Amino acid sequence: MKAVEVEENTLALIDVPKPEPEPGEVLIKVMATAINRADLAQRNGLYPPPPGASPIMGLECSGIIEKVGSGVSTRRKGEEVCALLAGGGYAEYVTCPEEQVLPNPKGLDWIESASIPEVYATCWLNLFIEANLQAGEKVVFHAGASGIGTAGIQLCTNFDCESFVTAGTKEKIEFCENLGSSGGSIRSGAIFEDIAEWAPSGVNVILDPVGANYFENNLKVLAVEGRLVIIGLMGGAKSDLNLGNLMMKRQKIIGSTIRARSVAAKGIVMKELENKVWPLFDSGRIKPIIHDVFDLEEVEKAHSLIENNENIGKVVLKVN
Amino acid sequence: MKAVEVEENTLALIDVPKPEPEPGEVLIKVMATAINRADLAQRNGLYPPPPGASPIMGLECSGIIEKVGSGVSTRRKGEEVCALLAGGGYAEYVTCPEEQVLPNPKGLDWIESASIPEVYATCWLNLFIEANLQAGEKVVFHAGASGIGTAGIQLCTNFDCESFVTAGTKEKIEFCENLGSSGGSIRSGAIFEDIAEWAPSGVNVILDPVGANYFENNLKVLAVEGRLVIIGLMGGAKSDLNLGNLMMKRQKIIGSTIRARSVAAKGIVMKELENKVWPLFDSGRIKPIIHDVFDLEEVEKAHSLIENNENIGKVVLKVN
Repeated sequence: MKAVEVEENTLALIDVPKPEPEPGEVLIKVMATAINRADLAQRNGLYPPPPGASPIMGLECSGIIEKVGSGVSTRRKGEEVCALLAGGGYAEYVTCPEEQVLPNPKGLDWIESASIPEVYATCWLNLFIEANLQAGEKVVFHAGASGIGTAGIQLCTNFDCESFVTAGTKEKIEFCENLGSSGGSIRSGAIFEDIAEWAPSGVNVILDPVGANYFENNLKVLAVEGRLVIIGLMGGAKSDLNLGNLMMKRQKIIGSTIRARSVAAKGIVMKELENKVWPLFDSGRIKPIIHDVFDLEEVEKAHSLIENNENIGKVVLKVN
Repeated sequence: MKAVEVEENTLALIDVPKPEPEPGEVLIKVMATAINRADLAQRNGLYPPPPGASPIMGLECSGIIEKVGSGVSTRRKGEEVCALLAGGGYAEYVTCPEEQVLPNPKGLDWIESASIPEVYATCWLNLFIEANLQAGEKVVFHAGASGIGTAGIQLCTNFDCESFVTAGTKEKIEFCENLGSSGGSIRSGAIFEDIAEWAPSGVNVILDPVGANYFENNLKVLAVEGRLVIIGLMGGAKSDLNLGNLMMKRQKIIGSTIRARSVAAKGIVMKELENKVWPLFDSGRIKPIIHDVFDLEEVEKAHSLIENNENIGKVVLKVN
């Protein structure tokens, strides 16, 4: 089968054997996969696959279950599904534990379904499980027009929270506001002054892919008992920290990735998505935001688009 | 009535009017109060009382309810109680919200009952609520022979967790081990090497009153998904932080104090103590650890004892 691997920081379309499902796994014929910023980090050697994960790129897909491994009880052959992957999505076939697979939401096509698992699992895990987000709270998404941001804004609206964003352009800010965000600030401007104005007593949760460059200001605009969730390091990893402020404001700093978590932990997130978020897709109250679609062969082009921050929402690759 | 206030960094025994309970409060005739390290910080101007709290020192007491304010429904006149206070304990009388008051555990005297509220509320809040401590996990208490440490060790034993301590002397380490700790390391030695040896895959929770001096090493010995709870700054507030490690290990840094929390939040902690910890006092499975007892007039002597780290467990003041 065709698959994309990293060879010395470039993406190579190679031919590899079709995988076989292990016990508890399903084999999916991949119809579409999507790009995540983590893929770019992996390609640059900064985010190696966790032990046991496929060397093939790709953290999510949609497709048809072609075969189930022994002991699989929740999924069946022929089902149209999407899946959260530890790797292997940029390929014609992929295997993964049944816990990481959900039926496609009603009415969504292959492209849309492939764009959901990684960003919705990441948002759900970090907002509602790690940060214990409560109705009525205020959330900031840095890189608000990203896949994560556009998913997070919609989750906030549907779970009665208010969201604010920062993003690189006026066009992106407007998109986020139309999607439900209460306010946006352009990265080149005074974003933390703007946040302090929107939330004079502080924001409750910040989902942050930036890291060091924003760290001290993030803590400044965070409310008493606020939670800062670090999910990326686009702005570096090394920072200063004043533990006195952290203690007196009773704040939490949470480091989080989803990829290296156990199958059981991912299964809990997927189950909650199925129960609480899939109905919102079914009814059209949440929509996948797709920036563009490419063929698998055009993966380089798709990556540069994200590398250059040109996207609003997800970039998807058609496979089979 | 007699009370102790701070006057230019010294403790002054002064005469002030007896307080009156507000709606929802009780008036307690104080039999005993106890010293906390936070009192020393307050005296040195580093930990001012939260807005609305008494300028009189003292974060806990035991005593007899002399009067109840309007609307009080859970406590009654004449009850023998102990209480978690936002201030005012070093005095013949104190008022506080009924939510912060519990009946004395069976068989404990005034001295013992006065020694419980602050350290058990702090340990319960930070171990079981903030850090979500689970049976089977490993906990480190720095300053293990302190009031907090000796309470925490016993809670760990009774809730099926393993505890390790660091402390200033061999005598303190032995005391902690006899109390239930699985291991102890002397502060002047290689404490973090010892911790890494006790818990090769990391400890799950660290309750830390030290702050900056231990910060980076605390994170190093913390397990994947471990929680570092900062409850004091005896070793400074300013530190470096590598967000990359925090993210890849999915760790949490939690800043926490109990004093400035809402009455409702304190009420939740007290209710859980009553349900889950008071029965352990009643049956003798947890014991208050009292280092020494002084008269209220000897408060200076009591403070220096703690300032010089001479205590194992709590130092209590007799009042009425």
